[in-house]
Amino acid sequence: MSALIRLPQWQALEAERRALAGFHLRAAFAADAGRHARFSRTLSAGDTRIVLDFSKHRIEARTLELLLELAHARDLRGRIDAMFAGERINTTERRSVLHVALRDLSNRPLVVEGTDIKPMVASVRDRMLDLAERVRDGRWTGHTGARISDVVNLGIGGSDLGPQMIAVALAPYQDGPRVHFVSNVDPEHLRSTLVGLDPKSTLFIVASKTFTTTETMTNARAARNWLVSGLGAESATTKHFVALSTNAKEVAAFGIAPANMFEFWDWVGGRYSLWSSIGMPIAIGIGRVRFMQLLAGAHALDEHFRTAEFANNLPVLMGLLGVWYINFWGAGSQSIAPYSQHLARFAAHLQQLDMESNGKRVNLEGEVVDHETGPVIWGEPGTNGQHAYFQLLQQGPALIPVDFIVAAESPFADDAQHRILVANCFAQSATLAIGKTADEARAEMIAGGMSEQEAQRLAPHREFPGNRPSSTILVQRFDPFTVGFLTALYEHKVFVQGAIWGINSFDQWGVELGKQIATRLSPALSDPKVPVDAASAGIIAAWRSLRKGG
Amino acid sequence: MSALIRLPQWQALEAERRALAGFHLRAAFAADAGRHARFSRTLSAGDTRIVLDFSKHRIEARTLELLLELAHARDLRGRIDAMFAGERINTTERRSVLHVALRDLSNRPLVVEGTDIKPMVASVRDRMLDLAERVRDGRWTGHTGARISDVVNLGIGGSDLGPQMIAVALAPYQDGPRVHFVSNVDPEHLRSTLVGLDPKSTLFIVASKTFTTTETMTNARAARNWLVSGLGAESATTKHFVALSTNAKEVAAFGIAPANMFEFWDWVGGRYSLWSSIGMPIAIGIGRVRFMQLLAGAHALDEHFRTAEFANNLPVLMGLLGVWYINFWGAGSQSIAPYSQHLARFAAHLQQLDMESNGKRVNLEGEVVDHETGPVIWGEPGTNGQHAYFQLLQQGPALIPVDFIVAAESPFADDAQHRILVANCFAQSATLAIGKTADEARAEMIAGGMSEQEAQRLAPHREFPGNRPSSTILVQRFDPFTVGFLTALYEHKVFVQGAIWGINSFDQWGVELGKQIATRLSPALSDPKVPVDAASAGIIAAWRSLRKGG
Repeated sequence: MSALIRLPQWQALEAERRALAGFHLRAAFAADAGRHARFSRTLSAGDTRIVLDFSKHRIEARTLELLLELAHARDLRGRIDAMFAGERINTTERRSVLHVALRDLSNRPLVVEGTDIKPMVASVRDRMLDLAERVRDGRWTGHTGARISDVVNLGIGGSDLGPQMIAVALAPYQDGPRVHFVSNVDPEHLRSTLVGLDPKSTLFIVASKTFTTTETMTNARAARNWLVSGLGAESATTKHFVALSTNAKEVAAFGIAPANMFEFWDWVGGRYSLWSSIGMPIAIGIGRVRFMQLLAGAHALDEHFRTAEFANNLPVLMGLLGVWYINFWGAGSQSIAPYSQHLARFAAHLQQLDMESNGKRVNLEGEVVDHETGPVIWGEPGTNGQHAYFQLLQQGPALIPVDFIVAAESPFADDAQHRILVANCFAQSATLAIGKTADEARAEMIAGGMSEQEAQRLAPHREFPGNRPSSTILVQRFDPFTVGFLTALYEHKVFVQGAIWGINSFDQWGVELGKQIATRLSPALSDPKVPVDAASAGIIAAWRSLRKGG
Repeated sequence: MSALIRLPQWQALEAERRALAGFHLRAAFAADAGRHARFSRTLSAGDTRIVLDFSKHRIEARTLELLLELAHARDLRGRIDAMFAGERINTTERRSVLHVALRDLSNRPLVVEGTDIKPMVASVRDRMLDLAERVRDGRWTGHTGARISDVVNLGIGGSDLGPQMIAVALAPYQDGPRVHFVSNVDPEHLRSTLVGLDPKSTLFIVASKTFTTTETMTNARAARNWLVSGLGAESATTKHFVALSTNAKEVAAFGIAPANMFEFWDWVGGRYSLWSSIGMPIAIGIGRVRFMQLLAGAHALDEHFRTAEFANNLPVLMGLLGVWYINFWGAGSQSIAPYSQHLARFAAHLQQLDMESNGKRVNLEGEVVDHETGPVIWGEPGTNGQHAYFQLLQQGPALIPVDFIVAAESPFADDAQHRILVANCFAQSATLAIGKTADEARAEMIAGGMSEQEAQRLAPHREFPGNRPSSTILVQRFDPFTVGFLTALYEHKVFVQGAIWGINSFDQWGVELGKQIATRLSPALSDPKVPVDAASAGIIAAWRSLRKGG
């Protein structure tokens, strides 16, 4: 049994889980009119407010205390301080973890190994935002002098999901050139994106720290071919390609001017990089002022995370509630339900953020853990999900916690229709919590004119067990500040869980072997004489036989 | 203990699970060069072939036999025959389940309660395809005589996800007007979709069987306002709105001509309706010939499912393998990894298909089940997922089976680049199966120049446990026929699992209560005096306080 499981605080939570075997949210709300007030927190940040309602969880006041004690026992405070101080908490790669520095808009210096990194961060950001503004206002033109109408971001993983999620989320604030994202090495992704684009007015952003990522560089070369053949000049690349990278040599060899390379640092993990130069497609879309508001929202959450006591600390509370379900109730997944069509890519971003960070099976000491770690993250925007998979959330046998995310108002669209959206969001969390008994279902059917016998037959099918947990995150509106705040909220929720489990949330060795094997298999697809491993030989032969003329 | 769990076949599988405790795919492949051949099936359909490779599963020949015996014990054969014969297998709604009739292109009559339904199906389909062709070739014009350039589908759930998934999947075959999908009641969904569209050349499809779905009708009314105010004439609706519905009265009241209403039937469930009139946006995009190829692909799979012996029956094998992991290995989710950017919405469609069908907690007899049912379905296209959540698949503690879906060739794009995609797909399944031992990781690091001590420290972090199961579905190309085939493959996989569990895969009572409560809460958002339930009062008060001036 690991040290974590042996902790008295962990054992106390095991006992609490048993003590709550008869707990039901319906009874809890009926018994206690103050439940919402006890289990919700309202945070003022900038000129806005955010509410975390966690009253619809299988907890009592005592449970929360025990979870907070676990956090203290795991020295969460020390872990938070270590990150903000720039310690090398990514121990397997011996790196600091300082995405918080990218949005630290305070006057405090941030000294890492003797150097204040903040001037360097500000300088690269200024260069990046300056280029974004020049593209937006037409001072930057293409090879033929044409203004840029379309920007294509070539990147994958963190160089794609984060900026794409934000660009989609802030679509109502988008007033620059159109922004497209191409990530997949599937050649159809680039081909179909370029249909209808004009090389004269298209700018490509190549986002790859090493400038060697297979997918990104394969697409970048194909894009360069398209551009050069469209414009008839090799030299056109200098006006149509910029790089977000640290590999100056490869960037120059590709045909990108040094002035158009924007660096970031080894203390910025891919899944935390949208706040860096990797955010350029966001900045081109919404402009400097709103990009800074995005950073300010994230910084406000950072300050809250760094300073608020744990009992009022939003990412701490969310992280601990996740641990409660994952480790004590056996929940294998967490559903994300943003009630906003513009947050359509939020769950996909969180999939990387959470699962790449905490999908780990060894702890910091290299011991195989004897408990679950990160959950599967999944979800689609509400109300869409209600007409699809909510059936399983409501009536399936499995316990799946849900995060509802909704805005109080919609600045650009019809307010009455927005209220229908909000009512649906609140109705789902209430329904999951309260349910409907078989007796109630039966009585309703009989009141509706059904025979007693038929009502009896159908009642079990129309019963809702309830007692299904959810959080509701209520914001005023999904503006740049708030979207920055929300994104950072989940980053730190992931941090909290990693700290509880004692794992390294900042490496990603699990992606390495696949790359290695893909590189080994690629030649075998072109040449049947190249030997392949036993697990791949059969499917490669099948692939060959299915190809035309194969 | 339920009758299912007591079955000797179920108990034999429990024993088999224990017998395989020491099984590892690495050893299984090393020991048996014939493993791929034994555990893969190639199916010829139309002029194409499909391979299901299930060799990377925790099974031996004996396991497969036991799973097939379970299928026989649950009378899967009888259940399949009952569906195809039009019996009312949706017992809680007393309905037949006949989406297979929508794509039955054979000459066999399909007599349901004395009537051959096939002429009726063909007649509505012909009308629908005729309208699609008129929109495509410009014979159908808008109120001012302008040709239709954009089609907006207004529907939600099955009236959105299925047609949208297919439209995205077949984007390379799209040669009609642009097709947009608006589902969410979030007013931003419609507002942002209409930006840049011209009322003169926009056609709306209102897809709602009852013509009362809140989301769809709210959006339809907002769309009508946009259209009428844009064109300045109430009567313009007749040339800019068509209905996929059965409620002739409400359709007429909305301002849609009876000739432009296309019906379907109560034996077509929403999540199986893309093959019906609900497929109109697909047909407008790709045209009659390709729409018929889509149906032909699904029909080919239907014929296979109906007639092939279970040991060679693709949906039967896939369904049983799912049961194996869900019920015997505790897998709570199933990841879908289509290696095709155009299949970006495939997992979202399967989420509804699978989770709405099999997210049930009572069996056909109304007894609460004592086992898990449908899994959480989730996933993003490969190779994107590799740079995000594959970390957790490779190195997380949980067991999550993966379906890889990939095409042998890419008809429209660069073949060399497509081979990189294929190599990545095969590499992931091999890596999941084979893994990398700590010794191998250590040796590699030392060979790369690392100190023994550091290699020792990092080895546990760079070990891959392997033995993680996946299927690979390999097709020739993602053309209309194959996409139809694949979609039907998953429909019947879901059917197989529902039959094993003895649940009703065709109702969806779990969506009902949420609608009821939303309708009850909506007035409370406008009027603070309307009483609300205890679980909603707090969050509604918070919502009110967050609104401007609230």
